[in-house]
Amino acid sequence: MKTQVAIIGAGPAGLLLGQLLTRQGIDNVILERKSGDYVLSRIRAGVLEQGMVDLLREAGVDARMDEEGLPHDGVELAFDNRRVRVDLAGLTGGKTVMVYGQTEVTRDLMEAREAIGGKTIYEADNVQPHDLDSPYVTFEKDGETVRLDCDYVAGCDGYHGVSRQSIPKDRIKEFEKVYPFGWLGLLADTPPVSDELIYARHDRGFALCSQRSETRSRYYIQVGLDEKVEDWSDERFWEELKRRIPDDVADKLVTGPSIEKSIAPLRSFVVEPMQYGRLFLVGDAAHIVPPTGAKGLNLAASDVNTLYRLMVKVYQEGRTDLIPNYSATCLKRIWKAERFSWWMTSLLHKFSEEEDFTTRMQQAELDYVTSSEAGLTTIAENYVGLPYESLE
Amino acid sequence: MKTQVAIIGAGPAGLLLGQLLTRQGIDNVILERKSGDYVLSRIRAGVLEQGMVDLLREAGVDARMDEEGLPHDGVELAFDNRRVRVDLAGLTGGKTVMVYGQTEVTRDLMEAREAIGGKTIYEADNVQPHDLDSPYVTFEKDGETVRLDCDYVAGCDGYHGVSRQSIPKDRIKEFEKVYPFGWLGLLADTPPVSDELIYARHDRGFALCSQRSETRSRYYIQVGLDEKVEDWSDERFWEELKRRIPDDVADKLVTGPSIEKSIAPLRSFVVEPMQYGRLFLVGDAAHIVPPTGAKGLNLAASDVNTLYRLMVKVYQEGRTDLIPNYSATCLKRIWKAERFSWWMTSLLHKFSEEEDFTTRMQQAELDYVTSSEAGLTTIAENYVGLPYESLE
Repeated sequence: MKTQVAIIGAGPAGLLLGQLLTRQGIDNVILERKSGDYVLSRIRAGVLEQGMVDLLREAGVDARMDEEGLPHDGVELAFDNRRVRVDLAGLTGGKTVMVYGQTEVTRDLMEAREAIGGKTIYEADNVQPHDLDSPYVTFEKDGETVRLDCDYVAGCDGYHGVSRQSIPKDRIKEFEKVYPFGWLGLLADTPPVSDELIYARHDRGFALCSQRSETRSRYYIQVGLDEKVEDWSDERFWEELKRRIPDDVADKLVTGPSIEKSIAPLRSFVVEPMQYGRLFLVGDAAHIVPPTGAKGLNLAASDVNTLYRLMVKVYQEGRTDLIPNYSATCLKRIWKAERFSWWMTSLLHKFSEEEDFTTRMQQAELDYVTSSEAGLTTIAENYVGLPYESLE
Repeated sequence: MKTQVAIIGAGPAGLLLGQLLTRQGIDNVILERKSGDYVLSRIRAGVLEQGMVDLLREAGVDARMDEEGLPHDGVELAFDNRRVRVDLAGLTGGKTVMVYGQTEVTRDLMEAREAIGGKTIYEADNVQPHDLDSPYVTFEKDGETVRLDCDYVAGCDGYHGVSRQSIPKDRIKEFEKVYPFGWLGLLADTPPVSDELIYARHDRGFALCSQRSETRSRYYIQVGLDEKVEDWSDERFWEELKRRIPDDVADKLVTGPSIEKSIAPLRSFVVEPMQYGRLFLVGDAAHIVPPTGAKGLNLAASDVNTLYRLMVKVYQEGRTDLIPNYSATCLKRIWKAERFSWWMTSLLHKFSEEEDFTTRMQQAELDYVTSSEAGLTTIAENYVGLPYESLE
């Protein structure tokens, strides 16, 4: 089997890259370890930056998003039993975000790929890239080993995937920060408590009121790393959430049975560089952000944007000279988003049992940024997404 | 002996408070443990916020400052061998800072106090406030114990002073952060390397190019807490400084023999509340900031402003109801300045021997704030000083 770009991983990053390349006549094959249904069953983020929305439009995958997605032009910070609105549109010259679940994005991309006749091989076992200067990828399908020859490999297979692990350890450097808490998330078919997302700092810990649609809510509360999801009945979750959000919000909260409930740890992670030979790492394969600020999926999209433009330059203009620029172009934007995610996490979570200097810094920072137009603007412009970087 | 306000400490805070009160006809006596010459010999900060400049004008102590002080409408951040200017005036609607040494401020205030006939008792031993609900202060002078009766006590005697220690331990809470490094400062009669201050982040550690006048420079470099000043010859200091600042700055640096050289640790410290009975803590007695951002003296001035306005309300309008507001009014602004000082310190100093996640966060933050007008504005508006808070 032979293609131009072998894409490892059929999550939103791999699928979006595949769609964009296919529409430019660049041949690609996607290899996915799991089934399509499994991929769709993963509950993930749901806030898309303007840049990702634009990229989905360029991929021709915008019809349902425009119908069902909810453009948000503001977001709220809650603390001291009060709320301060960050006017995203007003502070950034009209930029907004789109609330549209990652599951929906993935489904749209799968359907678009099917419609355009792109090749995706699901349930491909033991996917392994080889000889990264002149690469090929092997995998097992229905008991047989298959070899896929290619010009380039795009590693879109997430943090635990094989792509990053294929790079010799001494050629990359890992940067990591693990936070001493996790998020307990609850998904419910209840109307969201607020039109906009509410990020809440409370002495008991962080809470987030989020949503997937007008009838589906997603709430999170900070919990200790030793907490078990089975110890959290729906009732206990709702009670704890109510204690952490302002009274006027708690009074309006519509509770209901959970559809899904899970605990996720929080981590910052980046690998440098994000390329080795003809292998390019994309999204979670190269970097993880804590979910505060909703940057994970959006960073994957910005890597896809960079790799897509690079491949177009390579195949349509023969510009192989730009290939060495991939990693630095991606990382410039990634590190800023890592900073924003780390900053929002540090600002809003409980780090210590007692009221200490760190707590006071959080309170003073909230007090300052919410009383300063410049402070609010720094939040707004990061939240809607900093501009994509250029390869040249 | 009897007065309305007993002021403990004849540093710039005590002297400025005394001058402002005296001009409003409020009687006060300043008690100082050391001699006037000793007070003047202390080398301290030299960047005055607009608010402090205005307060010095209100105290009638502005003639020499206007003649010799250097208004600065910008400050520079240096990193990656380049410089980015923070246009203080342009980003804050015209606000600036004044470079004028603390020693000069103190000298001007001493002379003004002498001219107005204010009473300062130097070399007062064993100063001790008593019975803080109906206070008096005792001290020893020339071997005799003296009692000073008063309505209120202003504790302007610094971090190590007796004032804070006179408050029962269980009535106050201390917040503290100690940084794992110090600043080695060198004072020299050389022309400053730049018209404006340069705050430099470097992989070898922080450096600051500062100044006291057009002919007197003050430079600092971050050093380990185990470093000894005698191990730092002038030559070694200059060499190390040059390595940490951009090449174009290092090339222009005029070196010369040091007048003074010392190492100071960096600490964040705040006590809550800042009052107990009729004792009010002012400046360093209640809070310490690391010197990054030049907030120490300016915070003392903003406390003086609050206590001065409070005393005027009390003595001229009988508004004793405002007395309980002193601490909260001061702390609102203090915590924001503590945040800014902590943030600038965290941004620019070396915390780890290896290039790690924290290092990348510093680089990303510098990259972001210097490329965003909102980011630059947050620095500018904090650097020139946030507005003074009102008592009501």
